[in-house]
Amino acid sequence: MGLIVQKYGGTSVADAQRIQAVAHRIAQRYQQGDQLVVVVSAMGNTTDRLIQLAYQVSPEPEARELDLLLSTGEVVSCTLLAMALRAIGVPAVALTGAQAGIGTDARYGRARILRVDPSRILSHLREGKVAVVAGFQGITEEMDITTLGRGGSDTTAVALAAALKAQRCEIYTDVEGIYTADPRVVPEARKLERISYEEMLELASQGARVMHNRAVELGWVYKVPIYVASSFTEAPGTLICLQEGESMEQRNKVVGIAHDTDVGRITIRGVPDRPGIAAAIFTPLAEAGISVDTIVQNASVERLTDLTFTVAKADLRKAVEMVRHVAQEIGAKEVLWDDVMAKVSIVGSGMQSVPGYAATMFRALYQAGINIELITTSEIRITCLIDASRVEEAVRALHRAFQLEEG
Amino acid sequence: MGLIVQKYGGTSVADAQRIQAVAHRIAQRYQQGDQLVVVVSAMGNTTDRLIQLAYQVSPEPEARELDLLLSTGEVVSCTLLAMALRAIGVPAVALTGAQAGIGTDARYGRARILRVDPSRILSHLREGKVAVVAGFQGITEEMDITTLGRGGSDTTAVALAAALKAQRCEIYTDVEGIYTADPRVVPEARKLERISYEEMLELASQGARVMHNRAVELGWVYKVPIYVASSFTEAPGTLICLQEGESMEQRNKVVGIAHDTDVGRITIRGVPDRPGIAAAIFTPLAEAGISVDTIVQNASVERLTDLTFTVAKADLRKAVEMVRHVAQEIGAKEVLWDDVMAKVSIVGSGMQSVPGYAATMFRALYQAGINIELITTSEIRITCLIDASRVEEAVRALHRAFQLEEG
Repeated sequence: MGLIVQKYGGTSVADAQRIQAVAHRIAQRYQQGDQLVVVVSAMGNTTDRLIQLAYQVSPEPEARELDLLLSTGEVVSCTLLAMALRAIGVPAVALTGAQAGIGTDARYGRARILRVDPSRILSHLREGKVAVVAGFQGITEEMDITTLGRGGSDTTAVALAAALKAQRCEIYTDVEGIYTADPRVVPEARKLERISYEEMLELASQGARVMHNRAVELGWVYKVPIYVASSFTEAPGTLICLQEGESMEQRNKVVGIAHDTDVGRITIRGVPDRPGIAAAIFTPLAEAGISVDTIVQNASVERLTDLTFTVAKADLRKAVEMVRHVAQEIGAKEVLWDDVMAKVSIVGSGMQSVPGYAATMFRALYQAGINIELITTSEIRITCLIDASRVEEAVRALHRAFQLEEG
Repeated sequence: MGLIVQKYGGTSVADAQRIQAVAHRIAQRYQQGDQLVVVVSAMGNTTDRLIQLAYQVSPEPEARELDLLLSTGEVVSCTLLAMALRAIGVPAVALTGAQAGIGTDARYGRARILRVDPSRILSHLREGKVAVVAGFQGITEEMDITTLGRGGSDTTAVALAAALKAQRCEIYTDVEGIYTADPRVVPEARKLERISYEEMLELASQGARVMHNRAVELGWVYKVPIYVASSFTEAPGTLICLQEGESMEQRNKVVGIAHDTDVGRITIRGVPDRPGIAAAIFTPLAEAGISVDTIVQNASVERLTDLTFTVAKADLRKAVEMVRHVAQEIGAKEVLWDDVMAKVSIVGSGMQSVPGYAATMFRALYQAGINIELITTSEIRITCLIDASRVEEAVRALHRAFQLEEG
């Protein structure tokens, strides 16, 4: 028994029947004596439908009005879930983000939570009620409604869990948890019982899309254990938490393989090796809102170097244009690009201190006949850029090499 | 040039195209230099759709959650209209009822406006913006969202006009104004240029459904001129206002004929004529929320009297049951009922002081061979209960008799 924050995604509350199914899950937990705060996303494709309406009346809807419009989606689902709960005898109250005390800045469309005032939720919990909160939204000091952008409802849930000092935050979604690799690629992939925040962040940023990194980061900062599980089955999920209790040996292992085919590669050849060059190349990209990933610069030969980096495919065309412009200015030799590469990564805490892992990874790819184009590492991750057509083979080979199916 | 409050109903903002059409109407007025506050209802059948969803998840949705759910409908339409206005160059800001300063009591589903704080609207008007306000809703002191019930958006508009001391409140709807009779019944019915609040209230309560009486009453109390017109045409509408400027002769005339076929009649025969009997009969009906209309009690004969009254057809079955119970207790002879009657009324200021009108009405019905079952009068109205099958004939006969087509 304790205070639990749960979050149900849009697929889980897509229609009246699913809302009732979610209500029954909550009722079971309520009857076990837990205090429950439940955060919901908008029903199914509601948000897309509202955005479509906005673009029907305006080529460029204002961010403030768009946020107010979109916020209605979560208000609808939280009221319906509260009604469904009361219909089966569970006292419940629906709260907008504003009523739940979610205070944000005024950056419409991607607002940041500045403060959470949990007093109203706490008073409802004391009355024995389940508080059902509209996710993805907050209110500014000027009483304007904001939305939190991508991963918004997950972020609402984790922020509330932190402010309420909840025992844990449970994210219910349409997957059963975090796997050692994508189960569609590796049938013998194993669901992880636990994973550290850091590993989760690396897996997610390298292509494993279960939760948005923003919510995981927030959970890490406030030490909120995050449990990810399916809202459609009773199967146990994965707990994202600190790994302090475990021994060094257990920590220093590969937990999972991530892969990502949304990779556009750009190489600038013959870049003069002098201070300020990197800034000249990457500042315009950042200003254009293009995220750059996996930057590799080779050791320079005769004061000339090659610089390679990756961007999302959607940004590739624009990035190439901008880079060509800069390359000319700085007197680089040529700009090459392609979108036929993919990234494959192994992730695990403390990996860098165990050199054997890198060797195992490279050997496994070599034995599968897969060429490595580029290598980057973080403290807990090694990423190889390989041919996109070989990526699934690579994931399977690595999964076998690290014996991940055995746990 | 002045401060104008406009209100557009659900049909007028039913889809993106109609919202854009409304935006163009507003733009014209804005360019003439008027300061504009625009109140909108939910798009088309949105409210019905939301109510349907609520009943899919709960046999008896809670009033508080239902209000929060329904309030989203008007938020959606006000954001879309603000976007459509900005898309054609009119600066506009969308406001929820709460943001517009509409403070109400906590009687969910039928909240009363307690106070209006127009400061935020005024500051947007000073910035040169059109304030687009979600109708039908408000907020309690505890920050809970309420809805105002029937006629809610009209009431929002008139309340804002009163608080802002607006020049007038314009209600745009799917009819062109107030007519001397229902144009579907009387093809030569004439649109009225003006009508007094009192006459409008009597017409509306006797069956002419254009605006809800609540909003008209509020306009009367705060002396807000209310202009009713079509949002689909440019035809001039009807102004509901004080009639002070006009001569007695002009005032003392019939302005319109109302009719209502939603009539269930109940007669209690042989009621003992003693104090407290009327209370015994009508108190339980009031407690059950049944509105009673047109009560007539005949002069008593041998300390026994007959009591007749009408209710809406939807309430008839329940009312008869309750009345039978009371009739037995008080020793009345029998309870009769039917739902084949209709009301036809003539409405006009100062009518009661001109006896000729009653005579003209009764003669017109007599000449048309229509039997009068029951007569009631107010200061500015005479109503006859007649056979429902004859009601359209009666309306036409009265329209002719009072020469209403001539104006």
